[in-house]
Amino acid sequence: MARFPLLEKRLGYRFRNAALLDQALTHRSYGSPNNERLEFLGDGVLGCVVAEELCSRFPQLSEGKLTRLRANLVREDSLHDVALALGVHEFLRLGDSERSGGAEVRPSIVSDALEALFGAVFLDGGYDASRKTILGAYAQALAKLDPQGPTKDAKTRLQELLQGERRELPEYRIVAVHGAAHRQSFEVECVVAGLGLSATGSGTSRQRAEQQAAETMLGKLVE
Amino acid sequence: MARFPLLEKRLGYRFRNAALLDQALTHRSYGSPNNERLEFLGDGVLGCVVAEELCSRFPQLSEGKLTRLRANLVREDSLHDVALALGVHEFLRLGDSERSGGAEVRPSIVSDALEALFGAVFLDGGYDASRKTILGAYAQALAKLDPQGPTKDAKTRLQELLQGERRELPEYRIVAVHGAAHRQSFEVECVVAGLGLSATGSGTSRQRAEQQAAETMLGKLVE
Repeated sequence: MARFPLLEKRLGYRFRNAALLDQALTHRSYGSPNNERLEFLGDGVLGCVVAEELCSRFPQLSEGKLTRLRANLVREDSLHDVALALGVHEFLRLGDSERSGGAEVRPSIVSDALEALFGAVFLDGGYDASRKTILGAYAQALAKLDPQGPTKDAKTRLQELLQGERRELPEYRIVAVHGAAHRQSFEVECVVAGLGLSATGSGTSRQRAEQQAAETMLGKLVE
Repeated sequence: MARFPLLEKRLGYRFRNAALLDQALTHRSYGSPNNERLEFLGDGVLGCVVAEELCSRFPQLSEGKLTRLRANLVREDSLHDVALALGVHEFLRLGDSERSGGAEVRPSIVSDALEALFGAVFLDGGYDASRKTILGAYAQALAKLDPQGPTKDAKTRLQELLQGERRELPEYRIVAVHGAAHRQSFEVECVVAGLGLSATGSGTSRQRAEQQAAETMLGKLVE
């Protein structure tokens, strides 16, 4: 009764109770039972597995740095990237309200479903099975981690850099918004007036776009 | 080499590697290795175990209510209560800066050490052992949970009640502070001027004292 053999293959986990897999892929717009409770559970499992893995990979790292690395791995952006790599969005069951003409599924729906999948594996196979699945899904993200790298986000680093030089703070403004409500992509400009510099960034949220613009601005300033 | 047989007995867990237990009880003011990394790990383990337990106890509860119940169980107040019941504060290793003449140990130090203990059990005995220890420690708190009870805190409920009656909002002011810095206890008064009512509350933080005062005020208003 495995209805999603391809997804199971990518997850590296074969469900005993396929109904759990169905449920993890069902958004509340589709009906009930849906994946909201599994998402709650999966969020807890993910936090635990990531904490365990970070402690084991980085035996010398301070609690503060571990906390920041974990926050980076479990935030919506990162979840969304992992979910897209697994193709979670291809398997979602959505109601009509969330399924409008070829537009991309909202990132939060996709990343919530990924957490729900982790919760479903946990219920179906226990902690060790969910650990294996999560570490598999996160293999690339974990490999890219730089424990000594910037643990602050780009906007914070940019602000601190400018404050350190007693410069005006950067300003961010939305230049353009594309796509229908809830599936928008944002284009943002970051301006440092005192230096006559500007940089743009884009992303599926205003926050993401601002971070990207700040990153580009940092590149210009450090050159 | 079990150095804390009493605490192990209360936790219902016997450490294979007693050094982990030592470390979990060592605050950074004492030196290194201390319990900060174990606290990071224990925080993740606790979140996962509590999520699992709430899902299992309340199979009908919405994700929103589960989230609020979990937040209530893992916040510092609740951790501190659980830690005091286990007597964690009796076993802590603190530096001189945190150990001044008979005063109570700061609540955050005690609750962090409890999380570190959970992390230590996890490292020593795995997920199932930590689950058993956490559920044992939380037995009373879990038994008292009221899934249909107020999921909002007292200050929020009081504000909403007064807004609903188009009354002035309550004001909180600190009446007295006892104890040395970092180990203070607060006495707070909550005043609803329009009704000529006042109520007091006390606690180890301003926030706790305000919540208690709001709870008392709610009692007066609903009488």
